Amino acid sequence: MSRQQRQELDALLRNAPKAQITTVEQARADFAALFDAQAPDGVAVRETTLAGRPALEFTPADVAGDAMVLYLHGGGYVIGSPRTHAALTGELARRARIRIVSLDYRLAPEHPFPAAVDDALAAYRELLDGGTSPAAIALAGDSAGGGLSVATLLAARGAGLPMPAGAVLFSPWTDLTLTGASIEEKLGADPIFARADLEGYRTHYLGAGDPAAPLASPALADLTGLPPLLVQAGSSELLLDDSVRLAGRAAADGVDVTLRVWGGLSHVFQHHTALVEEAGEALDDAARFLAHAYRTAAAA
Amino acid sequence: MSRQQRQELDALLRNAPKAQITTVEQARADFAALFDAQAPDGVAVRETTLAGRPALEFTPADVAGDAMVLYLHGGGYVIGSPRTHAALTGELARRARIRIVSLDYRLAPEHPFPAAVDDALAAYRELLDGGTSPAAIALAGDSAGGGLSVATLLAARGAGLPMPAGAVLFSPWTDLTLTGASIEEKLGADPIFARADLEGYRTHYLGAGDPAAPLASPALADLTGLPPLLVQAGSSELLLDDSVRLAGRAAADGVDVTLRVWGGLSHVFQHHTALVEEAGEALDDAARFLAHAYRTAAAA
Repeated sequence: MSRQQRQELDALLRNAPKAQITTVEQARADFAALFDAQAPDGVAVRETTLAGRPALEFTPADVAGDAMVLYLHGGGYVIGSPRTHAALTGELARRARIRIVSLDYRLAPEHPFPAAVDDALAAYRELLDGGTSPAAIALAGDSAGGGLSVATLLAARGAGLPMPAGAVLFSPWTDLTLTGASIEEKLGADPIFARADLEGYRTHYLGAGDPAAPLASPALADLTGLPPLLVQAGSSELLLDDSVRLAGRAAADGVDVTLRVWGGLSHVFQHHTALVEEAGEALDDAARFLAHAYRTAAAA
Repeated sequence: MSRQQRQELDALLRNAPKAQITTVEQARADFAALFDAQAPDGVAVRETTLAGRPALEFTPADVAGDAMVLYLHGGGYVIGSPRTHAALTGELARRARIRIVSLDYRLAPEHPFPAAVDDALAAYRELLDGGTSPAAIALAGDSAGGGLSVATLLAARGAGLPMPAGAVLFSPWTDLTLTGASIEEKLGADPIFARADLEGYRTHYLGAGDPAAPLASPALADLTGLPPLLVQAGSSELLLDDSVRLAGRAAADGVDVTLRVWGGLSHVFQHHTALVEEAGEALDDAARFLAHAYRTAAAA
């Protein structure tokens, strides 16, 4: 199925302007220009705030029930916004028939680690304080936002907060020590990243901080007590092992975890529902996982 | 969900007579007594043969379409039979609405490695020679039968045969070098196995053969070109890392792979649909995977 689609996406990404960090402002502008798609028809988008940060709320016309997702966008902790991820987030809202609040957490280098974790934890706490049941909340995120989602779970656990129903992680960046074997093995196969890109993002986010800190590299952390996790990745990415090892760590720690890897697909291919059918398949898979997670959490 | 069910299953398994290899005949008899359940109502069971070996065919009353599964039972390559696995195999047939042929491949020590692989490959080849489309065939197996399923794919690839639609692997034993960290880390957490059990089965199957041979330890093999794999495991098993590393190897080699691990569940918990709801959930997950795999293979 769709070998041709996978190859077309690969070529498109290879030829796209890269969001390399020349200047941070230029990288942000390039990334915003590259990802300027809107939420799909039938999904209302509204500006809001959460714990003092701007956010975008995505509400599908046929929203079902009270469950919601707190979404944390990707971009290496340096670039991106809820708006650059509106197509992906809106598609997930539409397919899952749930409301999604996408948080505009503070970015590095202006606001280095752990500012993003602090913002995401504050947002989760405000949802709980506002009366939302943890069983009706899931986290979701892609790339750095995927790692940030797991870090937020760890921070919430550390703060004694109840766990949400689950978390969906698209190509999460979970190891800022950059020790995944795939960083070398998938060089060339990955149409987007080289190692220097990851190092650049890391420098902006961590400065001289410890890349092995659990809230920076949750794949290296004790994940005991985390709620069910869904991890999706493509096999053609430098960060493949960040997904594989996160899932392995979660399994070893007794967490319910699903890892799904699509051969020949690239980093956060879920952006590209218009190009490869696996992107929609992956989002439908996430929707099914979320429905199951909410149902399970509500029954616990 | 069902924390109590998971604990009850754990206690039941801890107190069950263990299928330890005292004598091979005694171990086979103990295992057969422990697993004497029948296929569920609505699934017809018929004795047949495949490539010269006995087999049991499971046909649900509401079978849909021509797709089928070649099933390879577990039991360390030494014990077990299609009959001991009739409940598990029948439940999978019922939930997936597909016909399953469960092969009575030759067992060790009377028939050591690679007799089981030879039988499974011959069975697959006979299905193809009989006119069944590879796109309408999936492999499935548990424990040693899960490892054997992957070995059969590798043997088929080596023989130049077309790949089937996919494979479902319940707690597969994929590393006979016994190097998975979980063999130490999950000791005590696993209610069934200790390391000596695995060593005993390995000795019967391999004798002085190389445990790192690809057809004995497919988690260590190059898996390039394999069809979509679904790997399911419980977090409380010595063989957890056999699942995690197989999935990681498959992903690195560009294979479409899904790994799903249930926290606190044990080796091949899918046997116990009457006890834990996750067993039925896992089989339903396998049914959905199979439907998707047949559909994808037919469209390719």
